[in-house]
Amino acid sequence: MKITNSTIKKLLDHYKEISLLYKIKATLDWDMNVNLPSKAATERAKQTEYLAQKITDLWIDNEFKQTLEKAQKEKNLTLEEQAILRNLIQGTKYYFRVPPEIIAEKEKLTSEAFMIWKEAKEKNDFKSFLPSLKELIRIDQIIAKHIGYKDNPYDALLDQYEPGLTADHVQKLFDKIKPQLVALVQRIQKKQPSQEIIQELLQQIYPIQQQKKIGEIAIKKMGFDFEAGRVDVSPHPFTTELNRNDIRFTTAFIEKDFRSSYTAYMHEAGHALYEQGINPEYDGTPLEGGVSLGIHEALSRFWENMIGKNPNFLKHMKPFFQENYLQQIQALNEDEFINLFYVVKPSFIRIESDEVTYTLHIILRFEMENGLINGTIKPEDAATVWKEKSKEYFGIVPPTDTQGVLQDVHWAYGSFGYFPSYALGNLYGAQFLATMKKEFDVEKELTEGSLAKIHAFLKDEIHEYGSLYLPAELIKKVTGEPLNPHYFLDYLTEKYTKLYS
Amino acid sequence: MKITNSTIKKLLDHYKEISLLYKIKATLDWDMNVNLPSKAATERAKQTEYLAQKITDLWIDNEFKQTLEKAQKEKNLTLEEQAILRNLIQGTKYYFRVPPEIIAEKEKLTSEAFMIWKEAKEKNDFKSFLPSLKELIRIDQIIAKHIGYKDNPYDALLDQYEPGLTADHVQKLFDKIKPQLVALVQRIQKKQPSQEIIQELLQQIYPIQQQKKIGEIAIKKMGFDFEAGRVDVSPHPFTTELNRNDIRFTTAFIEKDFRSSYTAYMHEAGHALYEQGINPEYDGTPLEGGVSLGIHEALSRFWENMIGKNPNFLKHMKPFFQENYLQQIQALNEDEFINLFYVVKPSFIRIESDEVTYTLHIILRFEMENGLINGTIKPEDAATVWKEKSKEYFGIVPPTDTQGVLQDVHWAYGSFGYFPSYALGNLYGAQFLATMKKEFDVEKELTEGSLAKIHAFLKDEIHEYGSLYLPAELIKKVTGEPLNPHYFLDYLTEKYTKLYS
Repeated sequence: MKITNSTIKKLLDHYKEISLLYKIKATLDWDMNVNLPSKAATERAKQTEYLAQKITDLWIDNEFKQTLEKAQKEKNLTLEEQAILRNLIQGTKYYFRVPPEIIAEKEKLTSEAFMIWKEAKEKNDFKSFLPSLKELIRIDQIIAKHIGYKDNPYDALLDQYEPGLTADHVQKLFDKIKPQLVALVQRIQKKQPSQEIIQELLQQIYPIQQQKKIGEIAIKKMGFDFEAGRVDVSPHPFTTELNRNDIRFTTAFIEKDFRSSYTAYMHEAGHALYEQGINPEYDGTPLEGGVSLGIHEALSRFWENMIGKNPNFLKHMKPFFQENYLQQIQALNEDEFINLFYVVKPSFIRIESDEVTYTLHIILRFEMENGLINGTIKPEDAATVWKEKSKEYFGIVPPTDTQGVLQDVHWAYGSFGYFPSYALGNLYGAQFLATMKKEFDVEKELTEGSLAKIHAFLKDEIHEYGSLYLPAELIKKVTGEPLNPHYFLDYLTEKYTKLYS
Repeated sequence: MKITNSTIKKLLDHYKEISLLYKIKATLDWDMNVNLPSKAATERAKQTEYLAQKITDLWIDNEFKQTLEKAQKEKNLTLEEQAILRNLIQGTKYYFRVPPEIIAEKEKLTSEAFMIWKEAKEKNDFKSFLPSLKELIRIDQIIAKHIGYKDNPYDALLDQYEPGLTADHVQKLFDKIKPQLVALVQRIQKKQPSQEIIQELLQQIYPIQQQKKIGEIAIKKMGFDFEAGRVDVSPHPFTTELNRNDIRFTTAFIEKDFRSSYTAYMHEAGHALYEQGINPEYDGTPLEGGVSLGIHEALSRFWENMIGKNPNFLKHMKPFFQENYLQQIQALNEDEFINLFYVVKPSFIRIESDEVTYTLHIILRFEMENGLINGTIKPEDAATVWKEKSKEYFGIVPPTDTQGVLQDVHWAYGSFGYFPSYALGNLYGAQFLATMKKEFDVEKELTEGSLAKIHAFLKDEIHEYGSLYLPAELIKKVTGEPLNPHYFLDYLTEKYTKLYS
């Protein structure tokens, strides 16, 4: 990357320190999730609060602000220079509008809330998390007010994760796919084979060491670089970029369900491959990370569902599973094995849900957090409302809050507005797959268990570019057309019709 | 702790930020040792270099310097206020005298050297570490010049670890105990039972999971607080204070020798108990850490050797060992089991050596690093000189540099001058033990496997005070007299005479 404009160069110099502080903070945050002893939470909160304050100071620095204004008047900027400027403007939006003390307060709140949530989830004790939840909502309402919005404070939060998105837009998008999804779920449920085999299999124990082996086989095939990252364990799987050469993800194991860690490995490795694959020339610049949560989720869910649960790839993986779970699944034939990954069934836990009902989980969360932020749902009612909505969408009520309102880490992180990007991800991913299929025989690769060509396509077309293109530009560049939800519906319909016909 | 003097208050305010940055950096350093993927070393070096620079900036801050000068003129300071001032002056010595760019350069060098050392040790490749070693020596020679010294640049480095200590003093101290140690080693070797049993036992495998269990039993008995710390694995065991509620130590496992991890656990937990036990009121002040490396080693080696290898405590621990290594050591009688921990034998690896020959290992290192720093030993000869000295002191030559000059992490950390504190630790520890024995029946406690009273004594007399007293003051406060090496020689003589008589 050649930067010639001196104003942009000056901005990059300043941003370098911001980037470094983000990376230091990312290490502390990762450590908090994976390693922190319980008594150390308060001290760690102080540290991240301090770093966040330093980052804020750099974002709101007066000279930087002036340079940024000057840069907006520059002409003949290259593609990269334009992208750098655009990303810095998006970055400063939050910091220029939200008062520093509010940003610092939120930072402190989320650090503390995480440990409280973790314990509350373990003990199924929503009440102990409620005071934190109230505070987190309060601070995000204040932040929304500062950022500014037309009708709904939630819009201001959404915009942070996927620029330009509004609650109204999301609602319309969901309305478009919801009826077809519901119909598809019903069609599949009528046709799908009995779940007796699965019920039996879920009575058995799949040792964590074996689950780890399978997960590692899968991500090695994907091309995860173990010299530039690592895999650990945490209650909720996540991926963090400490820097391009240090991408860490975590996984969680359910001893009685070996499918869950297999898909978690591939999902998180999908995030990790994206970050490991970004152009090294972007290191330390505003182009260095993945462009949006939507694109990130597109890639992670692509690997998890469209590759990991592809029937041909599952056929290839079957011997590895059988070797490791010799006593448990040796007797399964090919169809029975594949069907384990094709159960469409209403469930409590989002991250364990199938790819068809998954979007209903997102709709539930979108409506919950939209309501919590715009005041139509009270925090003290959150656990109850969750149960009511669960009843409405899935016909089932979670028996504990651990399996309900406490299941996800997002709100404890203060990430209201994050969830819709998961649904967007599904849509993007299906459109990428359709393009890929035009370029080479994807099924042939999967039959052979070779993921190199698929990884190379994503690397060349998406990973490589980091945050150079906006999501809308990127999808057009890769697929030749704007986001079109019919690819996702077509993908699901074709896959499940073929499977059960 | 009540601080009333306003100048001291001002100093404390400033130090708070230094303390926070140290803690953030400690987290990154711990992570580098335990978790870092190999490709991320350069980026991590940048981060720690940045933080070290921030710390330096705060130490050399002009207003702080002036406040410090003003404070030295204050009268009627309390004991705590005096200690705070004294520790800040000791802290600034390095920063006021060594130019910031040199401090930053050293920080960068050590971050990079660590990963190079780690790989060189794994691959037994001294040559690949040599360029780093040269650089580390060069930078410490420059630092010594800036700090200032009379005859020997090594004195300036020693002073950083144990204030006031000189190479000449250390040499005299070693000369005083060396002949008696040598005589003792010879006496023991003549009398000690055949090592056939041990040789046989070292042919077997002791699964790491079982070793971990024993280690955890031992440190639970010691009173290590798992909610305020953790235990991990790294090539060389070490303890880091991320903060008082987050004391982390690592251990290493040798599959064929279960004794090694047992003693490593107790050694490192000895460091950890010290830090976990410091007065919470000292948090974020210059009193918050252990007072010196010598006192730290006194405590760690006390737990490792004087408690962990005490015959009565070993009798108590025997059933736990036998339960976990059922097939391997079930047949041993009490004496045979105890004797496993009493072999006095020249060896290559310091951290695996017995408590009698250990001091010879320190003498070797002291002479090596004294020579490397004062120029009488060339870095390119380090591996060869190590082998020659090993031949001279132990009568044996390490077959690889992994077992020789590359075995310890200290030089890769740039910690020239550190080693002598290990020997001091032995002397302090024996003197503490003698005092403890006057206060209660230590052997009775050990026979019962109860370590609570011993921990309480250390907590009340030593841990609690953090860096309030200088080592010399502390030892006088605890034992009623200044450091007296005869306690250590008496301890060894009595222990081994009894054992083999």
